[in-house]
Amino acid sequence: MTTEELKEHIRVVPDFPIKGIMFQDISTLMKDKDCLKELLDRLYEHYKDKGITKVIGIESRGYILGAALAVRLGAGFVMARKPGKLPAETLRETYAKEYGTDALEIHKDAISEDDVCLIHDDLLATGGTTAAGLRLVRKFNPRAVYISFLIDLVDCPRAANYSEGAEVFSVLEVIENPK
Amino acid sequence: MTTEELKEHIRVVPDFPIKGIMFQDISTLMKDKDCLKELLDRLYEHYKDKGITKVIGIESRGYILGAALAVRLGAGFVMARKPGKLPAETLRETYAKEYGTDALEIHKDAISEDDVCLIHDDLLATGGTTAAGLRLVRKFNPRAVYISFLIDLVDCPRAANYSEGAEVFSVLEVIENPK
Repeated sequence: MTTEELKEHIRVVPDFPIKGIMFQDISTLMKDKDCLKELLDRLYEHYKDKGITKVIGIESRGYILGAALAVRLGAGFVMARKPGKLPAETLRETYAKEYGTDALEIHKDAISEDDVCLIHDDLLATGGTTAAGLRLVRKFNPRAVYISFLIDLVDCPRAANYSEGAEVFSVLEVIENPK
Repeated sequence: MTTEELKEHIRVVPDFPIKGIMFQDISTLMKDKDCLKELLDRLYEHYKDKGITKVIGIESRGYILGAALAVRLGAGFVMARKPGKLPAETLRETYAKEYGTDALEIHKDAISEDDVCLIHDDLLATGGTTAAGLRLVRKFNPRAVYISFLIDLVDCPRAANYSEGAEVFSVLEVIENPK
């Protein structure tokens, strides 16, 4: 399956969740068995030789291919969740949003210093959530951290230095607002 | 890996999220690569010959092994989400909770009458969410619907007829409050 065929399966919904956003709906990619397999194959090909031991999925769409990729790589899967949802002791990282703040949490026993970590989410927009996830995962002092996305919105203004030197890989590059 | 070894990886957290609940934390299962693989293998073995074409994951922990299972079965993956999160036209099913009501939504174009559906969630407790998910999926009039869980809390009081004749399979049976 070609990259163009994959992109054709993304549904663009104007003005969702708020006016001015061209929402990239991955549900139309996920429901297609061939697209789903192709996305996982491409992620696997990119990471198969990097010694990944933990895949960290950002709640909630990061769980979808994050966990599938973890199994395929022979790694464990870790949830990065919104505050208050994880039942045991956590580390937390707060980050600024357009209005107010939000935070991510990971269980304290979920990552060790021996781990090679891969953070996974569906969409790279400003990178604000990603940056928080990266700071959070680095608190565990793992051997390395990689970052992956299904879709990179290449024309979206990025938070400065959001990836802090970590390698970023996106399966698809999409222009949100073509000129 | 034996069933007992899998069960030993479930962390029980007393009084979370509210007093009296013995929370079954699957994060300790997921982070272990061997447990994660074993869970998926057992789900796959159970469903491999049933002709499943769509796996429906209940937000959000149902996405974890739901999507991994979909890829393994050669099926597509569909999100069942809380109201307002899916961007395009949906079908919705409301259900009663202890206080007030909640609802699940699935995109109208996500399931067809040709599909054989498998609903997946992490935990079977009262079955209230499952029953709503089942009614919702049946609105699409698919050829068949199956239901799977990672953990069945066998001593939890069940909603009457929650599975409405659909076949239910759980990888692990756990007693929440041993006498």
